[in-house]
Amino acid sequence: MTTTERTPPVPFTSEDYAARMRRVVADAGHAGLDGLVVMPGPELFWLTGYRPTAITERLTMLALTPDQEPTLLVPTLERPDAEGAVGAPSLTIVDWGDGEDPFARASALIPERTTMGISDSAWAMHLLGLQAALPGSSYRSLTQSLPMLRAVKDANELARLEAAGAAADATYEQILGVRFAGRKETEVAADLARLLREFGHEQVDFTVVGSGPNGANPHHEAGERRIEQGDAVVLDFGGLMNGYGSDTSRTVCVGEPSAEVREVHEIVRQAQQAGVEAARPGVACQEIDRAARKTITDAGYGEQFIHRTGHGIGTTTHEPPYMIEGEEQPLLPGMCFSVEPGIYLADRFGVRIEDIVTVTETGWLRLNNTEHRLRLVE
Amino acid sequence: MTTTERTPPVPFTSEDYAARMRRVVADAGHAGLDGLVVMPGPELFWLTGYRPTAITERLTMLALTPDQEPTLLVPTLERPDAEGAVGAPSLTIVDWGDGEDPFARASALIPERTTMGISDSAWAMHLLGLQAALPGSSYRSLTQSLPMLRAVKDANELARLEAAGAAADATYEQILGVRFAGRKETEVAADLARLLREFGHEQVDFTVVGSGPNGANPHHEAGERRIEQGDAVVLDFGGLMNGYGSDTSRTVCVGEPSAEVREVHEIVRQAQQAGVEAARPGVACQEIDRAARKTITDAGYGEQFIHRTGHGIGTTTHEPPYMIEGEEQPLLPGMCFSVEPGIYLADRFGVRIEDIVTVTETGWLRLNNTEHRLRLVE
Repeated sequence: MTTTERTPPVPFTSEDYAARMRRVVADAGHAGLDGLVVMPGPELFWLTGYRPTAITERLTMLALTPDQEPTLLVPTLERPDAEGAVGAPSLTIVDWGDGEDPFARASALIPERTTMGISDSAWAMHLLGLQAALPGSSYRSLTQSLPMLRAVKDANELARLEAAGAAADATYEQILGVRFAGRKETEVAADLARLLREFGHEQVDFTVVGSGPNGANPHHEAGERRIEQGDAVVLDFGGLMNGYGSDTSRTVCVGEPSAEVREVHEIVRQAQQAGVEAARPGVACQEIDRAARKTITDAGYGEQFIHRTGHGIGTTTHEPPYMIEGEEQPLLPGMCFSVEPGIYLADRFGVRIEDIVTVTETGWLRLNNTEHRLRLVE
Repeated sequence: MTTTERTPPVPFTSEDYAARMRRVVADAGHAGLDGLVVMPGPELFWLTGYRPTAITERLTMLALTPDQEPTLLVPTLERPDAEGAVGAPSLTIVDWGDGEDPFARASALIPERTTMGISDSAWAMHLLGLQAALPGSSYRSLTQSLPMLRAVKDANELARLEAAGAAADATYEQILGVRFAGRKETEVAADLARLLREFGHEQVDFTVVGSGPNGANPHHEAGERRIEQGDAVVLDFGGLMNGYGSDTSRTVCVGEPSAEVREVHEIVRQAQQAGVEAARPGVACQEIDRAARKTITDAGYGEQFIHRTGHGIGTTTHEPPYMIEGEEQPLLPGMCFSVEPGIYLADRFGVRIEDIVTVTETGWLRLNNTEHRLRLVE
């Protein structure tokens, strides 16, 4: 049995969170924002270490502006949890009780006639409440205003992404040994989920098993189809470990592959390699997409590569930067993203190969390191 | 081993979803809305049976207005999934591809200068996109405009809530037999999660184990504390089964309870019974809270009952109607909600007892039926 080292990660400190909050306030100013309001979700967790037990209709809001200390408004019942967050010492925590109007309390934390960034996944109900309580202020989506907010990872974050990648790799090594032929896709998907957890993931986000024709739908998860001898099977799985994401894909074949599966797999392998090798500081994100896409187009399968080449990864498994035509953001050292070209032959089969890559000072480094050649399973 | 019957639920039909959509359009009109926009989440699932694999930055939106067929806008990649939803035959499905502006497509589905309801948990990013694309239209939170949208359950929904309640009851019966003394709260919580899944839950939402002083924080989940002999332990657990929720609480004692634990437990038991017995059609929700609270206040613990008495349950484990002072909504046959008073003695212990109750034509029926007396565990 392959094992991965399971060293607990170096904890983030209150000062780590304080530094992030200071930097974000400065970045917001450069982006033309007067501050940020951040609701529960990946941004709040990244800024403060605080993740409420459940995201509910009760308003929780972090206000970040240049002129006041970072202030977290929480429901009274949740105050003890918030006080336990690692970032809490850098926060002023205020609470509101059942029966009070949370938006009256919230609007006191937002200067009037300002433009504030707001977390993408904040509830519409809460944005409407703020808009009604402070009609002179306007809001912009955080990702549209500050797309690279969390894109550059520090050393501690990188170490967590590496560990998550190693756990996903160990999962792949193990899944090669399970039975495929005759079992349902959902059964292999359950194996993937179990293995990700065994190797240290606290959350499984997706376990795609796309066998035969199902592999030709890149959005297929796993279904009731029984896997057959000769099937190409797309595996794409990941989740969170120590709060940071994994995401890797390999395509395997059940028994002997056809010449066409071998050929398509080899094209995707070369495209993935080309995409990875294009990465270095200063190169625009779209160049990663172009490099991978050129290989596939030159081989005559351009119409069958029907999605972008990659996406960022961090405290979520999908986030900016996106490796897509039109994205001119230059890569910076510490950015981490997927390179995952694919070819999808409708109603027949699909092939996708995916690694997470990080940008170094001079080039790139893969965070997934299992082999790329077409592996056969039983 | 206790077993529960596991009859698969009667499937909802396309016509069930069509009827819900028709009723909601009519209800929206009565509430002064010109229609609804519904994003992924419990409302979309309840209206169409469609639940995207992941809720992401890519816009998915159902538009419901009196003058057009229900129309679902989805990302192109997700179209096959949406077409597979049981409610799909009652929908016009349109899609948008990577690179297109989804808000231009969405705004074509919303009549100009209208007031639309929008799902509470729609992403702020998407609301801001709609507001920019259609500046003449305004939006209201669905729950504020139509709080009782999903509150009255039909027979099929009730059957699912009953089954989920029975599975939670079976979980409680089993947990009475596990070891408490010397184990961590998180270990007992893991037992609860495992049992809920064994008895048929597809999703576990919460597994509170509040031992000794931790029980005095009603929002505590489960921590690293080792449970001790003599502890009162609040257990509060639930999740989703066949898409419908369970939520029940009991407080147990590890070994022999103190006289005070016995006394407080008996007060809470009487308060819970009083809250349940107050339920019948026409009674305002706040009367459930008043009935339970009066028992506790009369016993001298009013200051230690620090939350509302209950909440609705359905396709989510917390939803309107709320059993809280000020909620004048009359109860209607088919409404389902929790009755869960508690007493919390800071730094010492807490007691909570909770059942889901449904309103019948003449009174009430419990969907949790395990006994209420203080049970001792080892």
